[in-house]
Amino acid sequence: MKLLITGGGGFVGSRLARALLAQGTLAGERIERLVLADMAAPPPDLLADGRVEARTGSLLAHTDALRTEPFDGVFHLASAVSGECEADFDLGLRSNLDSTRALLDALRAHVNAGGKPARVVFSSSVAVFGPDPAVPLPKLVADDTLPAPQTSYGTQKLICEHLVADYTRKGYIDGRAARLMTVTVRPGRPNGAASSFFSGIIREPLAGVESVCPVSPDVSHPMSSPSHTVDGLIAVYEASREHFLGRTAMNLPALNVRVSDMLDALEEVAGPAVRKLVRFERDERIAGIVANWPGGATAARAARLGLKPHENFAEIVRQYIDDCKALPTAAQTLKALQ
Amino acid sequence: MKLLITGGGGFVGSRLARALLAQGTLAGERIERLVLADMAAPPPDLLADGRVEARTGSLLAHTDALRTEPFDGVFHLASAVSGECEADFDLGLRSNLDSTRALLDALRAHVNAGGKPARVVFSSSVAVFGPDPAVPLPKLVADDTLPAPQTSYGTQKLICEHLVADYTRKGYIDGRAARLMTVTVRPGRPNGAASSFFSGIIREPLAGVESVCPVSPDVSHPMSSPSHTVDGLIAVYEASREHFLGRTAMNLPALNVRVSDMLDALEEVAGPAVRKLVRFERDERIAGIVANWPGGATAARAARLGLKPHENFAEIVRQYIDDCKALPTAAQTLKALQ
Repeated sequence: MKLLITGGGGFVGSRLARALLAQGTLAGERIERLVLADMAAPPPDLLADGRVEARTGSLLAHTDALRTEPFDGVFHLASAVSGECEADFDLGLRSNLDSTRALLDALRAHVNAGGKPARVVFSSSVAVFGPDPAVPLPKLVADDTLPAPQTSYGTQKLICEHLVADYTRKGYIDGRAARLMTVTVRPGRPNGAASSFFSGIIREPLAGVESVCPVSPDVSHPMSSPSHTVDGLIAVYEASREHFLGRTAMNLPALNVRVSDMLDALEEVAGPAVRKLVRFERDERIAGIVANWPGGATAARAARLGLKPHENFAEIVRQYIDDCKALPTAAQTLKALQ
Repeated sequence: MKLLITGGGGFVGSRLARALLAQGTLAGERIERLVLADMAAPPPDLLADGRVEARTGSLLAHTDALRTEPFDGVFHLASAVSGECEADFDLGLRSNLDSTRALLDALRAHVNAGGKPARVVFSSSVAVFGPDPAVPLPKLVADDTLPAPQTSYGTQKLICEHLVADYTRKGYIDGRAARLMTVTVRPGRPNGAASSFFSGIIREPLAGVESVCPVSPDVSHPMSSPSHTVDGLIAVYEASREHFLGRTAMNLPALNVRVSDMLDALEEVAGPAVRKLVRFERDERIAGIVANWPGGATAARAARLGLKPHENFAEIVRQYIDDCKALPTAAQTLKALQ
């Protein structure tokens, strides 16, 4: 089979690629070819695999060519992130909405020419949820909580969920939208995202570097590890249509933890000296944004697919430490931060 | 003030135009200019009004010019209908999604050039609701029921609701989305819409012509009259942002009636001989589509704006009869059907 991962050079995308190459098959079919499309080239270990083909550049520039190129399956992860979309409205519309539409239309053109509909997993986000004066946010957001996005990123993800559902209803694709929780611990340097500190307060102390937490220790948030996120995307791909249940989007499992729970886990795994590297210094801008995020999520439909959240945050800390030993990016992070 | 009605030549649009011209002001401001954009020219009585300017042709062709033309307010009603969107997927995307996006971007360009954000009322639809295996449809759909559209038309309306909300959040427009219920009684000949019979079983018998009802008499549906629909659009425009409550879409009031209630009302107003002109002959295709529609709707937020549904369907029948006397389109319908 031939697969496409958009955003295949990114953090989640390249991890997904590694997992797929390691298992060798997907939904019972042998993976012959794995195309990784991204703005930047994928990591060298992926490029070294004979099954991998990299296509760099903007997705929009590639979609015309995709109209005549059949794929059995697509993981559509490419996306401009939340902060970028707030800063540049046109960029968000282009990268998240127009690109997805063009990708779906390319897959549709293939079906209109007599081809089989590709199976498509679209990575949506917990960012579709938010409080609105008419729709108070529940304590935990469920699969069927009414989305009321409070960012352009969340709006665009939600719109694409509905495009994926309608293209699926019409038989142009076999699409499934899965809402990713906040993926922690991300390697790399702190970035401008408001959620950056959720990784930073674990990653920096483990590298021996001080980290500032801009919100109160009792802030709660739905988290997932990189490996659980990848497992979720694969399970959503492999589910039968009936098992996925309908065409609306599904929450992936979340461990709902408070910042204080995260730091307790850090101390449990790495000791009190490491924990002491986290300092609390409230940032009103970030605290204000985070106050609009759900404190946690449930994932009843994902549980039907056998997907479970981590039992505790220490598992997520240990996964990151293991990554630092095994994966070049994470190891470089440790070194760069030290 | 200068207003734009897209779809201003259509049934609801031209009625809205008449209501606005009759009241002369909107939200306390004098209406100096009313631009009616539609594929076809508006009715002659509107063209005869010195304040009216007609622009015919596709909305997409007009939006470039709108970028430099300031409007105080916009009623965005233009839309391809449900049946057209199912038959021609590209037409639906172009007419309902691309046109709305282009309109919103034209209004945004005006704000980016230093102008004041236009107030925008977007006519969404009860068609955003539908049953999904993961989201059973409640007996009555409320403002905060999770939409799960079962048509491309409903999908596109829902997507535009969220675009309107996000452009509003960013300050590019002051937008409000109002979900129209099924507007009855529509003048004109029966059309291909699956909901066409809801008007037909009243309109045709009143013209002395037999009408076939393709669904069971106990099918229930959320209805509104043309005048109540127009009143709702105007009230949504005139509401303060706080009074509109948030940025998510609002249901307009519905009278939830069964087909048998509609026919009882027809008999009450026009007599048993007229009612006898309705014959039941089940059409599986139409009955199947209608089975996916909500049996009724509530409108708690609209009630806060003072909007109420009709008390009974006889009021709606009488409104149509009055229209036939007063309005050329409705009178022509009577004649054409006879």
